[in-house]
Amino acid sequence: MGFKRSLPAATDYERIFHPKRLAIIGVSQEGNVFGSGMILSLKDIGYSGEIYPVNPKGGTFAGLDIYRSVEEIPEEIDFAVIAVSARNVPEALDACRKKGAAGAEILSAGFKELGTPEGIALEEEIKRIAARGIRVVGPNCFGIYCPASGLTVLPGPDLSRKSGPLAFLAQSGGMSIDFAATGKWMGLNFSKLVSFGNGADLRETELLDYLGRDAATGIIAMYIEGIEEGDAFFSTLREVTRHKPVVIYKGGLSAAGQRAVTSHTASLGGNKAIWEAVLRQCGAVQVGNLWEMAETCLAFTLLPERVYRGMTVIGGGGALGVAACDAAEAAGVELPILSGEIHDRIMAVLPKPGSSAGNPIDIASPMVDVAMQREVLRSAASDDRVDIQLMIQLFYHLRHMAVRMGAKSVKEVVPYRELADMVRQVVDETGKPVVLILPNHKQDLQYLDIEEMMREARQAFVDRGIPVFDDLNRAFTAIGHVSDYTARKNGRTALH
Amino acid sequence: MGFKRSLPAATDYERIFHPKRLAIIGVSQEGNVFGSGMILSLKDIGYSGEIYPVNPKGGTFAGLDIYRSVEEIPEEIDFAVIAVSARNVPEALDACRKKGAAGAEILSAGFKELGTPEGIALEEEIKRIAARGIRVVGPNCFGIYCPASGLTVLPGPDLSRKSGPLAFLAQSGGMSIDFAATGKWMGLNFSKLVSFGNGADLRETELLDYLGRDAATGIIAMYIEGIEEGDAFFSTLREVTRHKPVVIYKGGLSAAGQRAVTSHTASLGGNKAIWEAVLRQCGAVQVGNLWEMAETCLAFTLLPERVYRGMTVIGGGGALGVAACDAAEAAGVELPILSGEIHDRIMAVLPKPGSSAGNPIDIASPMVDVAMQREVLRSAASDDRVDIQLMIQLFYHLRHMAVRMGAKSVKEVVPYRELADMVRQVVDETGKPVVLILPNHKQDLQYLDIEEMMREARQAFVDRGIPVFDDLNRAFTAIGHVSDYTARKNGRTALH
Repeated sequence: MGFKRSLPAATDYERIFHPKRLAIIGVSQEGNVFGSGMILSLKDIGYSGEIYPVNPKGGTFAGLDIYRSVEEIPEEIDFAVIAVSARNVPEALDACRKKGAAGAEILSAGFKELGTPEGIALEEEIKRIAARGIRVVGPNCFGIYCPASGLTVLPGPDLSRKSGPLAFLAQSGGMSIDFAATGKWMGLNFSKLVSFGNGADLRETELLDYLGRDAATGIIAMYIEGIEEGDAFFSTLREVTRHKPVVIYKGGLSAAGQRAVTSHTASLGGNKAIWEAVLRQCGAVQVGNLWEMAETCLAFTLLPERVYRGMTVIGGGGALGVAACDAAEAAGVELPILSGEIHDRIMAVLPKPGSSAGNPIDIASPMVDVAMQREVLRSAASDDRVDIQLMIQLFYHLRHMAVRMGAKSVKEVVPYRELADMVRQVVDETGKPVVLILPNHKQDLQYLDIEEMMREARQAFVDRGIPVFDDLNRAFTAIGHVSDYTARKNGRTALH
Repeated sequence: MGFKRSLPAATDYERIFHPKRLAIIGVSQEGNVFGSGMILSLKDIGYSGEIYPVNPKGGTFAGLDIYRSVEEIPEEIDFAVIAVSARNVPEALDACRKKGAAGAEILSAGFKELGTPEGIALEEEIKRIAARGIRVVGPNCFGIYCPASGLTVLPGPDLSRKSGPLAFLAQSGGMSIDFAATGKWMGLNFSKLVSFGNGADLRETELLDYLGRDAATGIIAMYIEGIEEGDAFFSTLREVTRHKPVVIYKGGLSAAGQRAVTSHTASLGGNKAIWEAVLRQCGAVQVGNLWEMAETCLAFTLLPERVYRGMTVIGGGGALGVAACDAAEAAGVELPILSGEIHDRIMAVLPKPGSSAGNPIDIASPMVDVAMQREVLRSAASDDRVDIQLMIQLFYHLRHMAVRMGAKSVKEVVPYRELADMVRQVVDETGKPVVLILPNHKQDLQYLDIEEMMREARQAFVDRGIPVFDDLNRAFTAIGHVSDYTARKNGRTALH
């Protein structure tokens, strides 16, 4: 596939992502530098390997002795975090290489992205050192997050330690930290995340190839501003998407965005139509923003890889049912009209008047009746045309009912755990996934209790493997991506 | 314009929207019916007129004597809320008419929407009674919300009492209550809101005509499933949009959605392309969902009616700057490259390295420096090509900084009130609006403190007339609607 570096297999990714001995170069005793912040983040997240802080002035920080140089560290190191000023980076990097490090992430800025001769020269020097035998992430990056090992990105003291199938790659540090933070509460669990900044050495193509082979990774998401070697990247992408979904958010597809890309990561962007066509040809799933990327990854994580053609929409009331139909048609999904015996079985358990069971199924009240909803889900699933069920819950409406009923808190009238247990059980029983839509139109300052209950409910569902979306349209978009990827993948398989 | 009812001016809207004496027909002593719920809601929201509950059984409810019949009420009434079973509605309505009511809202369901001969006959009877001299809202509706008078829709005990320029019309009760609830925290204040359900008497065309003439209303939003008299409606719409923006969300534009509309409000929908073309011809602003409708109304409420061609984007970091450029280009807005003296003045106050002042202006840190941001906003506004400024604040990143700095709460490090005061001042000084983007990627259960701070910040900005959006793309869409409406309106004016 023609990498510049012909032997990516020689890279010791195990020691890079799961370092047992970690040097942090650029730690001040006063704590006011990035290296010190990184040590605090590693302690907060619970990294349990050895940490070796380095600063020529020595001293101690966060209970650790600071070594005066990399050479002084008593053991061979696996990986290093380098956060010294740009002109001191090459020396630090070479010292890490000599100390046996398989790789290093360089958080420091002040390289090629400045566009100055000095910055460009420093970056070239980093490349030369890397070629002698140390893999480099960065410079000008937030580094690696790996929940299994406890490695975390720059401002990431509070990321999750729960591992999962999702890997993420981006040059942008801001996008990486926002995506990891969003994943934490949305229910995305990561295998690895890499913010590689300027990408002087390790970057999109090699990392994608590695993640394609990585047994811990089942889904790959990427934010791309530009790529370095188009042919190699697209051929790798085409190969990886045969086995794993790759969800790509390409930023800078407009003329103005292109200009912003240049000043952000000094990458070449490209024409919108060409990108869209090529990504599709390569079997990738293209998304338009961070939220769509996260929601699409959630769908790939929690839904079986299938083509979802027929759907039921349950709950929510008239106008939401209309909106669901509009969204379904736009997403190419059918809402088959339930009829005969199935329709009658559902009508038999729905409250009256105001309900209907044609599909959308209007349950006519925001009150949560778990037994009734079980019957609806079960009955509807028995229709062969139904592949997936979409359940809308209007929990935010229940607060004033709770107050009038004399409940101490809104949680008392919302049995979200029982509901989540029931849904999980029905999904297992019927083999047809259910997706929960949980909108909130009461985001007032005084209604933090509603917000708290909704977040608890989201957690309860996600913990049971049921994806939750804020909004109908977002759910349809995400499910549509799963169907589309699956159909294209099946088509490719059929050709072989 | 050919209304069925030829003298809409004869309707006493003043007594309908601001009733001093209000009858509630269908109140049970036990409190378990809609009429009783309405009395509690009216008390909660603080309606201060006279309330006359009615039930043949008599008794008391919520400290009020229940009259055994409408006839027994000792005074003439202005308006009535009717919530008795469908078959008893005609008698109650006619009694209200005889008691002098200018109008009545019928919350009861069980009419035309059932599709049964009995339901249809009952609705025809309501129309006949209405024609004798009482205007009817409903049946099968949530009624009227009018903050100035304290009239509220069915489950609306907690809607705002703050009046504002926005009016809303919909058949759907669910859409009405959700839109009113959303407006409350988003910063939309209402003049009047009407959920008119089946629309047996008063409905879209007449109400739109009235709101077009209503001095308290400056912006009109509508959710439409279907309309009754197309020609009259569109000619009224065309007239109203000459003076006031009319924001329309048409649901049921898909085939499946059309089917759902029929079962929801028994209305005729219509073809998507035709609707889009006709709404545009009539000068309306078409939106695709409730959120876009609310955000567009927010922009119309707080931004001057102008064509916004040039914009700055300030803050947020590299990838968000790229996203802003992509969104701007999609919305037809320019991000002029700031240069020369203005560029240098901005660079002089930005932190380094990592910042840039080309536009987007990357301020390189989520920390809030009010004085620095004042200089940036002021300097950028002095460029003639800049019509509006978009400021991104990443407050959610500041929590762990607050913790490390030893702050008691995240609020201590986020001076949102000072920031809002500064922005208001700069807008007044420069005459160029500023819009705030306030995303939140940390929606974890344990971060309700971030949510609370963000909601306080939103309130502080909106109270000062600065619109706040969660997301870049949503802001661009809303601003784009204001520009587009203004350009079309100016074009129409120029033709005369």
